[in-house]
Amino acid sequence: MPAAVKNKIAGFMNSLIELARDDPRRVIHSLKVGIALSFVSVFYYYQPLYDDFGVSAMWAVMTVVVVSEFSVGATLGKGLNRGMATLLAGALGIGAHHVANQFGHAGEPFVIGFFVFMLAAVTTFVRFIPGVKARYDYGLLIFILTFSFVSVSGYRDDEILDVAQKRVSTIMIGASVCVIVSIALFPVWAGEDLHYLIALNLEKLGNFLEGFGDEYFQDQESKTEDLASTLQDTPVSVRAKIKEPGTKMSRECGRALKEMSTAIKAMCQPCASDVHIEASKAAAKGLNSLLKSGIWEGIDLLQVTPVATVASLLIDVVNCTEKIADAVAELASKAEFKRLSDGAPSPEKLVRRGHVAITVEESNMNNRASDE
Amino acid sequence: MPAAVKNKIAGFMNSLIELARDDPRRVIHSLKVGIALSFVSVFYYYQPLYDDFGVSAMWAVMTVVVVSEFSVGATLGKGLNRGMATLLAGALGIGAHHVANQFGHAGEPFVIGFFVFMLAAVTTFVRFIPGVKARYDYGLLIFILTFSFVSVSGYRDDEILDVAQKRVSTIMIGASVCVIVSIALFPVWAGEDLHYLIALNLEKLGNFLEGFGDEYFQDQESKTEDLASTLQDTPVSVRAKIKEPGTKMSRECGRALKEMSTAIKAMCQPCASDVHIEASKAAAKGLNSLLKSGIWEGIDLLQVTPVATVASLLIDVVNCTEKIADAVAELASKAEFKRLSDGAPSPEKLVRRGHVAITVEESNMNNRASDE
Repeated sequence: MPAAVKNKIAGFMNSLIELARDDPRRVIHSLKVGIALSFVSVFYYYQPLYDDFGVSAMWAVMTVVVVSEFSVGATLGKGLNRGMATLLAGALGIGAHHVANQFGHAGEPFVIGFFVFMLAAVTTFVRFIPGVKARYDYGLLIFILTFSFVSVSGYRDDEILDVAQKRVSTIMIGASVCVIVSIALFPVWAGEDLHYLIALNLEKLGNFLEGFGDEYFQDQESKTEDLASTLQDTPVSVRAKIKEPGTKMSRECGRALKEMSTAIKAMCQPCASDVHIEASKAAAKGLNSLLKSGIWEGIDLLQVTPVATVASLLIDVVNCTEKIADAVAELASKAEFKRLSDGAPSPEKLVRRGHVAITVEESNMNNRASDE
Repeated sequence: MPAAVKNKIAGFMNSLIELARDDPRRVIHSLKVGIALSFVSVFYYYQPLYDDFGVSAMWAVMTVVVVSEFSVGATLGKGLNRGMATLLAGALGIGAHHVANQFGHAGEPFVIGFFVFMLAAVTTFVRFIPGVKARYDYGLLIFILTFSFVSVSGYRDDEILDVAQKRVSTIMIGASVCVIVSIALFPVWAGEDLHYLIALNLEKLGNFLEGFGDEYFQDQESKTEDLASTLQDTPVSVRAKIKEPGTKMSRECGRALKEMSTAIKAMCQPCASDVHIEASKAAAKGLNSLLKSGIWEGIDLLQVTPVATVASLLIDVVNCTEKIADAVAELASKAEFKRLSDGAPSPEKLVRRGHVAITVEESNMNNRASDE
C-alpha cells in the first residue's frame, strides 16, 4: 500500500477516535441506530409477523433509518413529522384514487397524473417559505412521497385500503421503535446539553476576561519596549495609567462570570458574583474619571485610539456582566435553584477562592438580596 | 370563518406571492418537480413498462422526490450520491446475503442481523465527521437504507439478484429524469447566481459607502446641535475638521466599488475604478496628516474615540477597496473580460458619470495598467 494512502487512512481513523473521545454519546447513538434497525428486521424474519405485514415491513426499516436522530427531541420531531405527513398524504392519496376511479380505467392515469403534478408543485413551492422549511421540510417531502405512492400505486393495487393501512402501521411501528430506543437507552436531551453549554460558555468567557487584562497590558508593554524608538513614549504612558483599573475590571468581571457558571452547573444560587461585580464597577468609575483627567494630551489620536477603544469596551463589559448577573438571578429564582445552606460551598469559601476582600459592597449586596 | 383564521390564511398567501415575486425561478422549480414526478408515474400506467419493472417502479418515484434540487449542481450531486450509495450498498447487501446463506435458514437471520447492526452503527458514526456530513450525509443515509433493504429482504426473496437489478435500474432512471428535467427546462446554475451575487454585493457596499460619509457627518452635526449644551464643543470641531477628507474617502471608495460591480455584471474590464481609488487614497493621506496635527487637544478621550474609530476604519476601507480592485483585475484577466473597445462605455464616459476630474493619477494608472 502506498504511504500516502496509509497516511490518509491513519488520519481518518484518528479523526474517528477523536470524535468518539470528544463526545462518547456519539458512539452510543451509533449503536442505538444499529439496535433499532436490527429490531425492526425481525418483521422479516419472524414468520407470524411476516404473514401479517409482508413486504410492507420494509417501511419500518426505512422509517428507522430516516427518523433516528441524536437527541430525543429531534427524534420525536422527525417521527411526528413523518407520522402526520404519512397519515395526511395517505388519506388524500386514497381520496384522489377514488375521484380518479370515476373517470374509468383509461382516464384514471391522466386524472391521477394531474393530481400528482399539482400537489408536488404546490408542496415544493411551500417548502421555499423559510419558516416552513426550518420546521416541516422533512414532513413535506414525506407528504409528496406518500401521496404519489398511494395514489399512483392505487392504479395497480385493487386493495389500496389494505395496502395503505399496512404501510401506515409499519411506519408507526418503525417510528415508535426509534422513539423508544432513543428514550430508553442512554437518552440525549437537548435541554441538558443547553444547560451544560450555558455554564461552559460563561466559564470560557470568564476565563478569557480573567486573563485578558494581564495579557493585554503586559503584551502592550513588551511590544512597546521593542518599538520604543519608533513610537512616541506618551501612548505608552496612557496604557500604563489605565493598566491598573483596566486589569481589575476585566479580572473581576471574569470571576463574577465564573461564579455564575459554577452556580448554574450545580443549580444553586450564585452568591459571590455580586461582590466581584461591585468591585469591577468601582474600578470602572476610577477609569472613567482617569480618562476625563486629560492623560492623552499631545498624543497622536490614531495611536491612542486602540487603547481608548479597549477602555470603552471594558466599561461596556462591566455593564453587560451586570445584565448577565440579573438574568442568572432571574433564572435561579424561576428554576428554584438550591440556597447555599442546602450543601453548596459557603459564601466565605467562594469569596476566598476568588481572592476578593469582603468590603462594604458585600453587605449592600446581602441587603439587596434579602430585599428581593 | 373567524377573522383571525382569515388573516392567517391571507398572510400565508401573501408570503407565497412574495416568494414567487422575489425569485420567479422558484415557481419554475416547483413545476419542474411536478413534471418529473408525473413523468416517472408513467412506469405504473404504461403496461409494457410495468411488465418490466413492476412495483420496483416506485423507486423511481421516490428518487425523483428526494433528488430534485433547486440548482443543476445540487441535483447532480444528490443524484450521484444516491446512485453511488445504492450501487455500493446493493453489492454489499448481495454479498452479505450470500455469506449468511452458508449458515442455513435458521442461522441466516442472526448473521444478517449482525451485519446490519455493524454496518448501521459504523456508518452512523462516520456521519458525525463534519467534512463527511457536509458532502455525503445523504449518500450515507441511502447506503444504510439500501444495504438493510437488500440484505434483509434477501431472506424472503429468492431472486435477490433480479430484484436488486430492477431496483438499481429504476433508481438510475429516476435520477436521470431529475437531472434531464433540471438541465433541459430553465436550468438554474449556481455559478450564475454566484456571479450575479458578487456584482450585487459590490454594488450594495458601494452604495452604502457612497452615502455613508454625508450621512454620518450630517447626522453627527444635527445630533450635536441638540446636545450642544451638554457636550463640550471641541469634539464637534474634530468631526467638522475630518468631515471633508472623510466624506471624500468614503464616496470615492463607494464609486470605485460600483464601477467594479458594473464591470463584473457586464463582464468587461473595469476602467474608471482606479481613478476613484487614487482619489480616495489622496484623501486618506490628507486625513492622516490632519489627525497627526493635534486637533483633539483638551478633549475627553472617550468622547472623541468614536470619531477616531470611524476615521481609522475609513482608512482601512480605502486599503480594502484597493485589494478588492486588485482581485477584480485578476478575475478580469483570468476570465478574459471584454476590453473597452469591444463596445463597453468609454473611460471618459465612466469618469464623467463618476464626477471625477482627470488628474495626474489617472495617467499613472494607465501606465501601471500597461505594465501589467
